Amino acid sequence: MKRIVRANALEYEFDFRHKPKLHVSEGESFVIETEDAGSGYIRSADVAPKIDDFPTRKFTPPKGNPVGGPVFIDGVEPGDLLEVNIEKIVVDDQGFTNIRPGVGPLGDSYKWQSVRGPFVKIIKHEIGPSGTTRDGKGFLNDKISWDLKPMIGTIATAPEREVETSAIGQGPWGGNLDVRDMKEKTKCYLNCYHKGGLLYVGDVHASQGDTEFYGTADETRSEVTLSCKIIKNKRIPFVRLEKEESIISLYSYRPLEDAVESAIVNLMEWMVTEYEIDEKDAYMHMCLNPDFRVNVYQMVRLGNLEYTVGAEIPKKYLRH
Amino acid sequence: MKRIVRANALEYEFDFRHKPKLHVSEGESFVIETEDAGSGYIRSADVAPKIDDFPTRKFTPPKGNPVGGPVFIDGVEPGDLLEVNIEKIVVDDQGFTNIRPGVGPLGDSYKWQSVRGPFVKIIKHEIGPSGTTRDGKGFLNDKISWDLKPMIGTIATAPEREVETSAIGQGPWGGNLDVRDMKEKTKCYLNCYHKGGLLYVGDVHASQGDTEFYGTADETRSEVTLSCKIIKNKRIPFVRLEKEESIISLYSYRPLEDAVESAIVNLMEWMVTEYEIDEKDAYMHMCLNPDFRVNVYQMVRLGNLEYTVGAEIPKKYLRH
Repeated sequence: MKRIVRANALEYEFDFRHKPKLHVSEGESFVIETEDAGSGYIRSADVAPKIDDFPTRKFTPPKGNPVGGPVFIDGVEPGDLLEVNIEKIVVDDQGFTNIRPGVGPLGDSYKWQSVRGPFVKIIKHEIGPSGTTRDGKGFLNDKISWDLKPMIGTIATAPEREVETSAIGQGPWGGNLDVRDMKEKTKCYLNCYHKGGLLYVGDVHASQGDTEFYGTADETRSEVTLSCKIIKNKRIPFVRLEKEESIISLYSYRPLEDAVESAIVNLMEWMVTEYEIDEKDAYMHMCLNPDFRVNVYQMVRLGNLEYTVGAEIPKKYLRH
Repeated sequence: MKRIVRANALEYEFDFRHKPKLHVSEGESFVIETEDAGSGYIRSADVAPKIDDFPTRKFTPPKGNPVGGPVFIDGVEPGDLLEVNIEKIVVDDQGFTNIRPGVGPLGDSYKWQSVRGPFVKIIKHEIGPSGTTRDGKGFLNDKISWDLKPMIGTIATAPEREVETSAIGQGPWGGNLDVRDMKEKTKCYLNCYHKGGLLYVGDVHASQGDTEFYGTADETRSEVTLSCKIIKNKRIPFVRLEKEESIISLYSYRPLEDAVESAIVNLMEWMVTEYEIDEKDAYMHMCLNPDFRVNVYQMVRLGNLEYTVGAEIPKKYLRH
């Protein structure tokens, strides 16, 4: 299987001028070995006092949130839509989370002084029934663990004319979205603006809660297996996801309520145009359907990063 | 069982000067027959053109969102916390949703003209396996139905010195919160500011999606069975919920991101003070735990109504 090895998965921009690192065919599975969001520097908790030496701080421009790519998908033309199938995400045997002093929603709090940092916490990953970490466990401490839910934080095609940093770039071509539903068996739909699509993937989290509250989740190395389909001549307003049981319309924006409103209206449009739901019925689903959900995936204050929201409806309501 | 009959469940304010309609003991089950949010006027779809005759519009002040109460709970003193156990919610055989022209997130849209209104839609409720509507079905049309999830939209004790309208009043004493988790088997915790607590309940929805997008969900009459416990001398920052499997810290505020942040910080405080979670661990749960959820329950633009959010964590992570 073709792959981008970790040492070559250290791009820090989405840039259409990058030379493709991989050429694949439609339907062909390929692997990206992703580096963690700290560029591989943080392997133990005792680096916390050296927090200003982290690649995310030390360099100008900073080397945070590396991505592997671009991957050139044969047959993709500008104006096509890329369907990315997330086939497998195997994470490393550990991840980290960290806080810099003064940063994050409570970094400047008087009441919550104990969370100010600097701190680095290593989250140990245990393999699960599959014999990999895909269904393993993460350990907060010796008493508390949870089932790992590996997800891709950053996934994008190259933007049309912009060059965006992988850490904060976001648009209808994807970016650093930090969506917990960007997981195995999810299909992710991205607009393409260049020949080959030019796909980038990185910033895998072994686990993340809603909002990614202070901005670094369980950041980890991984091996991501993907394959792509091409939908010719199609544009969507923003990234869409399809899970086994539901569809999700994403939107990244601030303030949060505007992100929510746009995600919902875009979901209505999706239902009307592709599932032949009556406009008024689509509107009523958004207000009445007890299974309609809004997911606040990411609400991190970091540069001009926008908050990412998803409006989700089960597919069972879309079949007539 | 003591009850407030529907004809007496037509208060439109939370007002500590109201004479109690019911006196109950701690632990005693009682019933409130709630009227729907339209004050019982909307029983068929053909009233849509008469939308300005609705009690929510016709009267000054408007007669929208009636509540039953106050219920005086023996033994409650100012400064106590009330635990309200929602034992049963049986809804009527129908509910309604409606839109006034120009109102709601798409009421002024050029693109979505078909949803402008006026429209009234009657949602038929079918009884379920229990022989009641508690687990019944709601019908959007002849092809699409969903399982009803009856919930209490408005629940409050009388505020300390304010008199608040039942339609838009919200505070640490409750109010029109529109939280889909305010359902059977939920325990709701409300601060008490007056002798007897003075509890009001109304605005039951047979179903509601996240955000209650255009502001009227499946509005219905109901019979709500409740009982209360008293927790002496306790104050909480805002309303808390306890479900069977999780705890939820609510917060109502604008903008939405501030509501989310306060709900999360209040959940951390709850975890630290009552479950002996380390402060830093509580913070990390909020960012890393893949089962930590933020629920955008209500995001309706109506007068000075604030948006209601809940931060939720499963109880299994709180046991050592």
